[in-house]
This record gives sequence, structure tokens and C-alpha cells, in this order.
Amino acid sequence: MLGKLSGWGDTIVALATPPGIGAIGVIRVSGPEAFTIVGRLFTGKDLSAETSHTLHVGLLVENGEQLDEVVVSLFRAPRSYTGENVIEISCHGSPVVLERVIQAVVRGGARLARAGEFTQRAFLNGKLDLAQAEAVADLIASGSAAGARAALHTIRGGFSRALRELRERLISFSALIELELDFSQEDVEFADRTQLYQLISEATVMTAELLQSFRLGNVIRNGVSVAIVGKPNAGKSTLLNTLLNEERAIVSEIAGTTRDTIEETLNIGGILFRLIDTAGIRQHTTDTIEQIGVGRSLEKMEAADIVLYLFDAREGVDGMRGELMSRGKVFVLVGNKVDVFEGAVDDPEAVMISARSGFGVDSLKKRLVELVLQGETMLGDGAMVTNARHYQALVKVAEALEAVARGLDDLIPGDLLALDIRVALHYLGEITGEITTEERLGYIFSKFCIGK
Amino acid sequence: MLGKLSGWGDTIVALATPPGIGAIGVIRVSGPEAFTIVGRLFTGKDLSAETSHTLHVGLLVENGEQLDEVVVSLFRAPRSYTGENVIEISCHGSPVVLERVIQAVVRGGARLARAGEFTQRAFLNGKLDLAQAEAVADLIASGSAAGARAALHTIRGGFSRALRELRERLISFSALIELELDFSQEDVEFADRTQLYQLISEATVMTAELLQSFRLGNVIRNGVSVAIVGKPNAGKSTLLNTLLNEERAIVSEIAGTTRDTIEETLNIGGILFRLIDTAGIRQHTTDTIEQIGVGRSLEKMEAADIVLYLFDAREGVDGMRGELMSRGKVFVLVGNKVDVFEGAVDDPEAVMISARSGFGVDSLKKRLVELVLQGETMLGDGAMVTNARHYQALVKVAEALEAVARGLDDLIPGDLLALDIRVALHYLGEITGEITTEERLGYIFSKFCIGK
Repeated sequence: MLGKLSGWGDTIVALATPPGIGAIGVIRVSGPEAFTIVGRLFTGKDLSAETSHTLHVGLLVENGEQLDEVVVSLFRAPRSYTGENVIEISCHGSPVVLERVIQAVVRGGARLARAGEFTQRAFLNGKLDLAQAEAVADLIASGSAAGARAALHTIRGGFSRALRELRERLISFSALIELELDFSQEDVEFADRTQLYQLISEATVMTAELLQSFRLGNVIRNGVSVAIVGKPNAGKSTLLNTLLNEERAIVSEIAGTTRDTIEETLNIGGILFRLIDTAGIRQHTTDTIEQIGVGRSLEKMEAADIVLYLFDAREGVDGMRGELMSRGKVFVLVGNKVDVFEGAVDDPEAVMISARSGFGVDSLKKRLVELVLQGETMLGDGAMVTNARHYQALVKVAEALEAVARGLDDLIPGDLLALDIRVALHYLGEITGEITTEERLGYIFSKFCIGK
Repeated sequence: MLGKLSGWGDTIVALATPPGIGAIGVIRVSGPEAFTIVGRLFTGKDLSAETSHTLHVGLLVENGEQLDEVVVSLFRAPRSYTGENVIEISCHGSPVVLERVIQAVVRGGARLARAGEFTQRAFLNGKLDLAQAEAVADLIASGSAAGARAALHTIRGGFSRALRELRERLISFSALIELELDFSQEDVEFADRTQLYQLISEATVMTAELLQSFRLGNVIRNGVSVAIVGKPNAGKSTLLNTLLNEERAIVSEIAGTTRDTIEETLNIGGILFRLIDTAGIRQHTTDTIEQIGVGRSLEKMEAADIVLYLFDAREGVDGMRGELMSRGKVFVLVGNKVDVFEGAVDDPEAVMISARSGFGVDSLKKRLVELVLQGETMLGDGAMVTNARHYQALVKVAEALEAVARGLDDLIPGDLLALDIRVALHYLGEITGEITTEERLGYIFSKFCIGK
């Protein structure tokens, strides 16, 4: 199916843990020479004599120079992540130590791994299909529990199983139809058209469900953008801080790593929300905004999935409800400062809060989560499309299935039906990697991090 | 020896790898309940039935919720880093996944580890002495091969062995002297004064050598600060870039992690140099510097270990040589732009380079390394003091030994000699942790990273 990749037989090495200083850092070595290369550096034991899935403590020494005291994990082919011989070296977590060990392994005969090459090898060795392999990258990059859950479901084969079942049924039908072609003079039908129609209907429903899951899947993977808008002094900054401070207290216990790249994110009920801070924008452009009005601020937030309109509970929503509805936005009206004013207007369609005291903020969070789920449940075992590449391929599958269904209605000959079925099969195969090109694979895996 | 630490019997958990996204992240669990707690989450196998030093692939599930597919490493007490039951969980390297697993382990009965607590437990369980434990932190933080080498030497017990030998000999002498005190009426000498004198002489030499090694040890651990000074347009920025560009090409292959915290560092021959970029300072304050002259710029660099004075090869050094010598600085004179001008002055005491073409830069690097080593070799197996705490204790040891030697000269009574020997023993014991307080231990280990 695939041409041999360049360097496919090489033994590769990379840092598998994040760069930086930590208690430990893990270096992964995979390939036919993994045991030989690491074994030459490892003192105290002959690693080649040890069984798979065992741990060994020892000193790495290169030309008499001590590199580190390490623990090595042995995984013998095919019982490893890549399906090859794999050794993971757990070193002291100093970048200098890790670099020295990696360079010693390279001098010993390995080469530095390309991004995603370990997972690519796992795919090529049949340990994972392409959809599963891509979910590994998604799991690593997941920014929320829901994202991690969806990716793990795919890694464990949930999505692939659904596609494989569909694909196998289409293949068996396709084979029967192609058999008819060999007997085309005799006008026989091996493939029962009623059964085929039934299958295509089922496949169409399943594909449609998967396509529909992409909206939620995409949201789960990439987060929901929420624009907080409102007049000056409505309390946007206070609300933002109230939302974020609670969140930070939880996140900062471990890492807080995403804060560098994403401005303000909130994890509510396992769903990632990205807050667009119009409060921040306002501070620098107060005059302009005041002149042009909130409409302008809304335009800027056109790209947001959800608009959160904050108003002063004394003043009410004004014309904003109509404005938001006419723009077709998904929105939440939030009346603020209920604690301050006796004469607060209780708007039944709004969430009434006090950003300062935190009153009502939980209800607001609940409303946000409801808007995302809209009756869909994330906790089910259903397969979910989270990957744009899979979505595009499924759109093609749906088109091909529609063509087959039309063809059946029009009683077109078997050879033409077979063509459309083959198109559907092609795009199904592209998702799981049964059908793909080496360049395409290279592109997909190049988006992985090094060491995976 | 030590009072029980609070929470000493707890099972603890922490992320052992650096925070951030990576192919994998490792969570370390240590304590009596490690196997029970992780075993409840781990599906597919009964971990409590498995032997030490084995690896197991499985799914972590908490209350029906799948957390991650992981590999667990089992280390049974006392054959582990801490000496307790230890499980390391190798997860997919997503901060979200890692946080979920850590929280599941905490809900299962573990608590988050304090900084350095794993190593502190290793110390309390006799797996490492205090000097070795501190060297673990040094190894992790090491910024150069030489620093890593010195720390690894200490971890492997080189430094501790030297101290222990000295301590044991002093103890046996001390015991003999104290025995004399029991027979003080009879005027006997169990402890041979000549032998004691010999021992004290040897101990004094050894302590002096260790103290002397601190200058180099400190340099190896913390790096050598180098101020690059010179007139405007001497080529400081070009030289800096030439030095750094070569370096970056090597470092960036793996991590380049130190760049965030340390402005400009250069690793030459395994020694870390920290470059103080006066070129950068100059850009903002050209006028002032021009007025006050290079002398002012030098004052700013007073704290540097080495001053690198760059001059235009056409112009020569001027009065700077005298200026630098009068200030007692260690310096290198560097004549730049030898490629540009026919009439370059060849100064035999200067390194002549072309920062632009790279000519002579290797000689300059060699000169810098020579200045640091000054005849000392870093590759030897000698113990080296790299830790300020150890240095301070050794100064006290030296003082006590000097008092003993003086006492022997003055023929003072045994009980007074014994007192001074006990002072020496006390400070020796402080280094390796035989004598220390719980508060002091807590302070030392609090400087470790979490997870170690």
C-alpha cells in the first residue's frame, strides 16, 4: 500500500517529555538497534538478555564519561508503542543531561526522530489506524476534559470501529455488484437492490450523525469563543476576573501552561471557553466606542460562537435583544449588579448576577454549557468527529452515498453504482488511512510534536 | 535522629516531568498506599500481584470515566528512588490529562507532594545522604556538562565518601580521647598525639583542597559572568552574535529552554558563560556613555568574573590594559576587525579576531576556558564543592581543625581537644545530613522542584 519511507529502518531517538527543567525527563528510542545502542551505554547489566516490560536502574557511560544514572524501560517488538523495539530512558530532568544522553545515542547509531515519527511508525506497523494516530496528537493538545475524552474515545478505536463496519458492508456489496458485471450479458442481480438501499440509508443516517457531531466535536477540540460585550461600566472586567480567578485557582495547582498562547480561557464542566475580552479593547478606545455605540463592538465580535451581553440591572437590556437576534447570534443576556440596586429589573430571559459578589455566576456558567450542548450529551459512548480532515472526507462520503441512493432510484446499471460506492469507500479509507499517499501521511504526522 | 515529619506516612503524588505539552508526561506516586491507590484506577490487571521493576499497559478509569491509556512502572520498597513503594504513571503528555490523573490519585487517597519531598523521603530512608540529595537538585538545574558531571559525581557518593572517611577517623580519635578523660587521674594517653597530629594535618590539607575547589565548583554550577566592553563600533554586537549563533544552532535541536530566564548564555567546552551584553545597554544610553567614557561602562561590569575588552585592531588597546589591571580584573583583550584593515596592530597579548568572519573566535573561546580552569582539571575524579552550604560548613571544619592543631602544639588537655574535634565532626555531619534539624531539612528540600 505504501512505498517505504526514507529512513524507515533507522533507529530513532527523541525527548518524549516537554522541554525544560523537571524531576525527570524521558528519552524514547525506537527501532531495530534500540537495544544494541542503549545497551552499549548502559552499565551493570546486559540489556539484550532482559525480557520485555521490565525496568533497569544503571549508569549511562560513553567512552568512560558518566552521563547520568537512569532507569530504562524495555519494550520488545511487537509489544511496544511503535511495534518496534523501544527503550525509554528516564533521566534526571536537566536539559543539559538530556541533550548529552540524546547525543550519545545519536553517536551510537540512532538519528533524531522527525515530528510524529514514533506514532507514524505505530501506524505503519498496524498498531493504530490513521484516525487513532491523529487522536493521539489531539489528546496531547487537548485543552479540556471533554476534548481529552473525545480523543481517548477515538484512540481506543470507537470512531474507527464505526467506520470500519460501514466500510466492510459497502465492500461486500461492491464485490457483489462487480460480480454482476462479469455476468452482464445474463441480466442477473447478485446484489439485492432492496438490501443495498437499506444499507445506503443506514450509512447515510450514520454519516449525517457523524457530520453533525463535528460542530460539538470541533467545539470540544478547539473551545467555544465567547465575546463579553456591554456598555462601559456594565462590569465586564469584574465578571471576567470573577470567572477567571476561580478557574486559575484550580489550574495553577499543576501547570497553567496554556496561558502563554491563549489569552483567556475558562474550563467549565470540562468544556473549554475562550473569552474575548472586549473590556480590554474598550480601555484603549473608549471615545470611539462611545460614539459608534455597542453595535460596532458587536461587529468586532462577529466571529464569536457566543455573545455574552452584560447590562446594568437598573437599566435593562434596551434594544440589544433585537439587535442580537437580528444578527442571528447565539447570545446570553446577563443583568449585572443585582446586589447594588433596589430597583433592579428582573428580566426573566436574562441571567441575573452580581459579578462582584459572585451571585448568579454559577447559573451563568450552567447556561453557557447548555448553549454548547443544546441537548447533546458529551458523556455518551457515541463516536464524534473532532478532526477537520475527517469532516471533509465524511462530506465526500455523504455525497457519494447520496449519488448511490439516487442511482438506485433511477435504476442505473450496476457498474455506475459500483463507481459511486467506490468513491464512498475511498473517502472512508482516507480517514482511517487504508487509502492514503506517503506525502499526505508525511503532512499529517509533521503536525505532531517531536518525541511522539 | 529526626522527629517524624508531618505527613511522613502519607502516599504522595506529583507530576515528575516538566509542565507543558509533550509526547508523554510522568506522574510519580510514592508511599505505602501507592499500589492500592493506582491499582484501583488501573484496569486489566491486578497491580498488587505484579513484581517490582515491571511495566504494565492499561487504561485508567475512575467511576466509569476513562482517564487515559497509560504505562505504569512498578518499584516495590525498598528498591525504589524513595525507598517506598513507587509507581510512575506514563500518560499522554497533555496538561489536562495529567491534571485529571493526578486529581484521581488524590481522590484515591494520596496527597500532592511538597517540593523535594520524594528526594527528602529518599534521604530519610537512607537511600541518599544530604549532600547527594542536594546534588540531585544541582544535576537537574545544571546548565552545563561540567555542572552535570560534578553533580553526578556527588550523587554517586564521591564527595560523601571523602567526608565520611575523614569523619570516621576523627570519630575514632575522639572516642580514644574521651576514654582518656575517664582515666584522667592516671595520666594515660590512649590517643597517640603524633598520630592525631598526622590525621589533623591530612584533614587540613583535604579540607583546604575541597575549599579551594569551590571557586571552580561554583563557576561550574552557576556559570562565569563575562562582560563584553569596548568603544562604540568596536564590534561587540557582532561578536556576541557570532558567539551565540554557533551555540544556538546546537542547543535548539533539543530544547533551548534556558533562553527565557537567562539572557545570553554560552556553553564553551562544557563550561557555562553568562554574557553581559553592554552592547545592548549602549544602544539606549549612547550619549551618556560617550561622555563618561568606557570607565563608567567598566564600573557597571564590576561584578563580572571576566571582562572581555574589545578594541579596533587599527587603534590598539590605548590605556585600557592598565585600567583593567589596576582594577584587579581578570580580563581578555580582543583586537577586532583584523580582516578589514591592512594596518592592524598585532598585539601579542591580545586575541586577534574578526567577529564578522569568525576568524580567531575559536582562540578566544579557548582563552576563556583557560582563564576559568587556570591549570585545574575538571575531568579528574576529585570531589568538588559546588554548594555554598557545604562550603560554609567546610570553613567551620577548617577552623575547628586549626584549633585542634593549635591545641596539640600547646599540649592542651584531652577534654579541650575533644571539644574542637566534636565541632569539626558536627560541621562534617551537617554536610551529609547525619546532624541536622527538621527545619533545616525542610528548608533545603523546599528549594527542589515539585515531583523530585
